[in-house]
Amino acid sequence: MVQVAPCVPLYWRFARHGCYNLSVKVSELGEFGLINLIGEMVGRAGKAPGGLILGIGDDAAAWKCAGGTQLGTVDSLVEGVHFTLDTISWEELGWKSLAVNLSDIAAMGGVARYALISLALPPETTVADVTAFYRGILELAGKTGVALAGGDTCRSPLVNITITVIGEAPGGKMLRRYAARAGEMVAVTGYLGSAAAGLVMLSGNLNLETGLAACLDTAFHKPLPRLAEGRILVENDVRAGMDISDGLVIDLGHLAEMSGVSARIEAEKVPVEPRVKESFGKRALELALSGGEDYELLFTADQETIIRLQKVLPVPVTVLGEVIAGKAGKVSVVDGKGREIALSSPGWEHFTA
Amino acid sequence: MVQVAPCVPLYWRFARHGCYNLSVKVSELGEFGLINLIGEMVGRAGKAPGGLILGIGDDAAAWKCAGGTQLGTVDSLVEGVHFTLDTISWEELGWKSLAVNLSDIAAMGGVARYALISLALPPETTVADVTAFYRGILELAGKTGVALAGGDTCRSPLVNITITVIGEAPGGKMLRRYAARAGEMVAVTGYLGSAAAGLVMLSGNLNLETGLAACLDTAFHKPLPRLAEGRILVENDVRAGMDISDGLVIDLGHLAEMSGVSARIEAEKVPVEPRVKESFGKRALELALSGGEDYELLFTADQETIIRLQKVLPVPVTVLGEVIAGKAGKVSVVDGKGREIALSSPGWEHFTA
Repeated sequence: MVQVAPCVPLYWRFARHGCYNLSVKVSELGEFGLINLIGEMVGRAGKAPGGLILGIGDDAAAWKCAGGTQLGTVDSLVEGVHFTLDTISWEELGWKSLAVNLSDIAAMGGVARYALISLALPPETTVADVTAFYRGILELAGKTGVALAGGDTCRSPLVNITITVIGEAPGGKMLRRYAARAGEMVAVTGYLGSAAAGLVMLSGNLNLETGLAACLDTAFHKPLPRLAEGRILVENDVRAGMDISDGLVIDLGHLAEMSGVSARIEAEKVPVEPRVKESFGKRALELALSGGEDYELLFTADQETIIRLQKVLPVPVTVLGEVIAGKAGKVSVVDGKGREIALSSPGWEHFTA
Repeated sequence: MVQVAPCVPLYWRFARHGCYNLSVKVSELGEFGLINLIGEMVGRAGKAPGGLILGIGDDAAAWKCAGGTQLGTVDSLVEGVHFTLDTISWEELGWKSLAVNLSDIAAMGGVARYALISLALPPETTVADVTAFYRGILELAGKTGVALAGGDTCRSPLVNITITVIGEAPGGKMLRRYAARAGEMVAVTGYLGSAAAGLVMLSGNLNLETGLAACLDTAFHKPLPRLAEGRILVENDVRAGMDISDGLVIDLGHLAEMSGVSARIEAEKVPVEPRVKESFGKRALELALSGGEDYELLFTADQETIIRLQKVLPVPVTVLGEVIAGKAGKVSVVDGKGREIALSSPGWEHFTA
């Protein structure tokens, strides 16, 4: 390992972002700083061999194969970071682990085909736990036509579930993060904030009406990835989109940054499930803007396309803002009178406090 | 989660292996019991959709795509289980994490194409650590023509590295675990036991001659996956093979079990690097038989094929035993007089003590 003398700091140099101090911790760099660092190292290593179409930076990687375009995505869920076994059952954990990965394929407008599951488990995990976990995975795999192709099991003091999903992008059409253009509308599928409301309910032992409680529990524990919706988007020539995992504002910020544009959201238009609005009051908007884990699709398109999509998509499609020319990645949230609303937190980021 | 009353145990029933007591821990089931359990749950879930050729049980999964046969494999390395940061540098860790996965593609006789890297890191990890880790990965990726297509980063109290490699099996030809036939020779590439000798050296602070120490350090920290060798094996119509990761005897046991045959190894023929034999004495054989982590290829073929391979492979090919009719999975090790040698441990298995 490189030793860094405090008075003569060594730097790792990159073309795009200048240099990194080698003694900086990833907690200071932040999740997205870390992703940039890795992306630049990989880029510096030279042109990728073979038919890589999309590398680091989008919801999934994409590469050419003889028959078309393939997609690959991987995501880890770590005990104590992404979940605790006090608030999620093993069966729900299985479903959710696969769902968050399938959502990345949905976010590309792709078709999910195969899953590889790497499961690190404490030795005291029981057969009941493992079978419940796989029941959850298999239930969602069955609903989405995904085959469990293989995986790996190993011992670990903490549960770590890492799932890889391989999919296809028929005709090479994909929802990309860099393709938003000024003048387009910003739209989302479904309702936002229900998953975060579910987490608030579970953490705070809120006593909600049974129907709503079940709905929030499902939103948080068993999200349904928008695979069919993603396909319909690309078939209707939507080019820019992603899924909402970290939170609407932070994710729209990523889309806007990669597209070199700004975006404005009208707070009143953000779609929140009516019962959530009623039960959570003012907090509902905050949950919808920055709660994350909704796994709905966020996309940009012209008005005509969105009107067409509202007729064919099986879920509500809501226009909540617009793409505007301006500083890359800037997202402003405005109230009914056009005044900017300050946010306490834009959304979820790993590593930073 | 399912509650199990001690006097009325519930069982999870499977076609092949009967039933599992739900309260049994994975430490009692063992790694391979767990893999069987998962394999059977997945199998019970019904016929896999699409073109899955190989599911759980071999070194990699395989599926049809328009242009041919694709391979996918995933493996995790967990801090404190597979490595400790006291004895491996971040750069070596990067190399080794990719190497163990590429070895699974080599074990299928495939061509490795794309890697997806999921990296769970403690927040105090430095930029120097991360850049060193990726330097190690990129060095091996460059040597093997693999493109880093994407991945995931997240926070975790422990380092967990999970790498997925996607590859191809040209012409659909693969080295399979079920294809060994009685009468064939058992052969391996390279030398065995050097990686385990490296671990003994590092753990025990053995003071070995500099050249040997460097060689053992490389064997343990920077194994070179036998990708070219795997390709030559399938091109020469070898059908049964795998890589040696858990140890010669335990891995040959897996090959024999899946092929429904037994195997016999002649201890004197097991190829051990001469300097390892000299420095480790009698222990060298034990390291070669059960040490694991050699990432050499183990395969079976007729004598004529092996003689041909000895001429074309760039590494030594040693015949060390034969496939015999008998109890599926039984492996015996015999001395020069044909007497069976008892082993203290057949090799590495997760979960069991």
